[in-house]
Amino acid sequence: MKLASLPGSGRDGRLVIVKRDLTRFVEAGDIAQSLIAALEKWPEVSPRLEARAEALEAGKVKSFALDPALALAPLPRAPQFLDGSAYVTHVELVRKARGATLPESFWTDPLMYQGVSDRFLGPRAPIQLADEAWGIDLEAEIAVIVDDVPMGIDAGAAREHIRLILILNDVSLRNLIPEELAKGFGFLQSKPASSLSLTAVTPAELGGVWDGGRLHRPLHSHINRRELGHPDAGTDMTFDFPTLIAHAAKTRHLSAGTIIGSGTVANRDHEIVGSSCLAERRMIETLKSGQATTPFLKFGDEIEILMKDEGGRDIFGAIRQKIQPYRPH
Amino acid sequence: MKLASLPGSGRDGRLVIVKRDLTRFVEAGDIAQSLIAALEKWPEVSPRLEARAEALEAGKVKSFALDPALALAPLPRAPQFLDGSAYVTHVELVRKARGATLPESFWTDPLMYQGVSDRFLGPRAPIQLADEAWGIDLEAEIAVIVDDVPMGIDAGAAREHIRLILILNDVSLRNLIPEELAKGFGFLQSKPASSLSLTAVTPAELGGVWDGGRLHRPLHSHINRRELGHPDAGTDMTFDFPTLIAHAAKTRHLSAGTIIGSGTVANRDHEIVGSSCLAERRMIETLKSGQATTPFLKFGDEIEILMKDEGGRDIFGAIRQKIQPYRPH
Repeated sequence: MKLASLPGSGRDGRLVIVKRDLTRFVEAGDIAQSLIAALEKWPEVSPRLEARAEALEAGKVKSFALDPALALAPLPRAPQFLDGSAYVTHVELVRKARGATLPESFWTDPLMYQGVSDRFLGPRAPIQLADEAWGIDLEAEIAVIVDDVPMGIDAGAAREHIRLILILNDVSLRNLIPEELAKGFGFLQSKPASSLSLTAVTPAELGGVWDGGRLHRPLHSHINRRELGHPDAGTDMTFDFPTLIAHAAKTRHLSAGTIIGSGTVANRDHEIVGSSCLAERRMIETLKSGQATTPFLKFGDEIEILMKDEGGRDIFGAIRQKIQPYRPH
Repeated sequence: MKLASLPGSGRDGRLVIVKRDLTRFVEAGDIAQSLIAALEKWPEVSPRLEARAEALEAGKVKSFALDPALALAPLPRAPQFLDGSAYVTHVELVRKARGATLPESFWTDPLMYQGVSDRFLGPRAPIQLADEAWGIDLEAEIAVIVDDVPMGIDAGAAREHIRLILILNDVSLRNLIPEELAKGFGFLQSKPASSLSLTAVTPAELGGVWDGGRLHRPLHSHINRRELGHPDAGTDMTFDFPTLIAHAAKTRHLSAGTIIGSGTVANRDHEIVGSSCLAERRMIETLKSGQATTPFLKFGDEIEILMKDEGGRDIFGAIRQKIQPYRPH
């Protein structure tokens, strides 16, 4: 089952069920008015949503053409967004480029920060920022949405709380990061709103490419239609999602709708598969030639992030966004 | 006007208006079903709430006895919680105790992190944590609640978005902090759920003690009925709330209901007024005698945080919480 949100009466949007091929949707407001409302009582609500999704595939229910440009993020706002750095090979490369070594503990203790979650951008929403000089970058990630997770859960039990999987663009302002992290309190200004794919998809719908902890397909990123990379999300992911959830929940409950991000997807063989963010490409350039030549994103640039199934079909509904100057009203 | 939340049908609780003396409340669900709903359309809703608050004071509306033990946090969940460290004198002391100097920029560029906001504890809710050895501490703070704040706002305009003021206990796990901050991504496991005072109060209700940017009254903290401190929240606050809001909103919009915290209230003359957290008291002990003697909180300990008006009356409804061991269900 694939779920999306369209504009509704409130800030959570209205829940719709999307056809497997992403072309059409059926209303679901009589089952749950929003995705967050559905997640808050998932065991009760999801069988009814699944039944309607089957009816949609079979053409047995009234459906409408889906315009991704009108879609909100599947969760326009989420109770928490906790973003890990599960591809430690990427973190290692970041450090290497600044001449620092990676602490051994980074292979066993996940890095994670709390990001802004009250306004996720839809899959086609422009990324509006005031200043190009901030060093605008994409970060192509996988993310999962959980239902209510009790504090102190272990990774084994956390696995059962993964209800939906999706793609996320963790927009980053690279030139604000060094000064902000140097203050010691983590990211804030350097991490503006992130973007989500058109749909959030159930584990069952993903079949064999989802193994309960990792998603085994390449994640494709493009900038102005030129490929940035296609690392496999199931390869070199040091911490799987259940481990990230358990880390997040050590001292707090996670409310239904909490989004756990994987961090930038990256593979060791980046020479072959490329990268999921410009910062990594620039680091590789720096390590090779002493300086980065690829610039960060400029106003007018277009990014695309998508994942295809074995048949070449878009699974989640691509993220396609233009970078635009922000003009306050 | 003083507003609180009682258990309702959803996770946002139901909005009630509280009498100035905190003894009684009147329902307000016909005006706005929850505080977050009210904040999302504040200009339209607040005059109607104010009118009912006046009727409540005048005894012209049906009211009920208010039991703080049954109250939720005024905002049981908030879109964002961004916590500053506005009392730089406190940060300076922290650094001094570890033999580090304070970067000059800390006096001009606020420290701020994003905290958990999907489940604030009510004013009498126990603080349940799995392990005493984590070094459980309170942090008595002032916080404000804003309505919708556009990205890029300046401090002057931010002032007009402060709709409510309250007291906050930023629970901190001191023994988890050094290792977590050393990883460079800020707080996560070391900052569990925070607690809010019984009511959130409008600027007008506070009168002269609120100057539009700072709250000028001592903030009293007690542990097991012994005073920890009573620093004045209006003294030595390096960054006022409008400045903190502008910092938070540099690269993101803030949704209505966002909570901005002041960080631990602290005054330079801590010898006289004491502290608002155990970590500060322990630092002062370390600087004086070479070692900290006051322990962190133990299971069974009771903390109290409150602010009184000139007449000695509790303004916000005290935070009174017991530390308890967390037992997963």
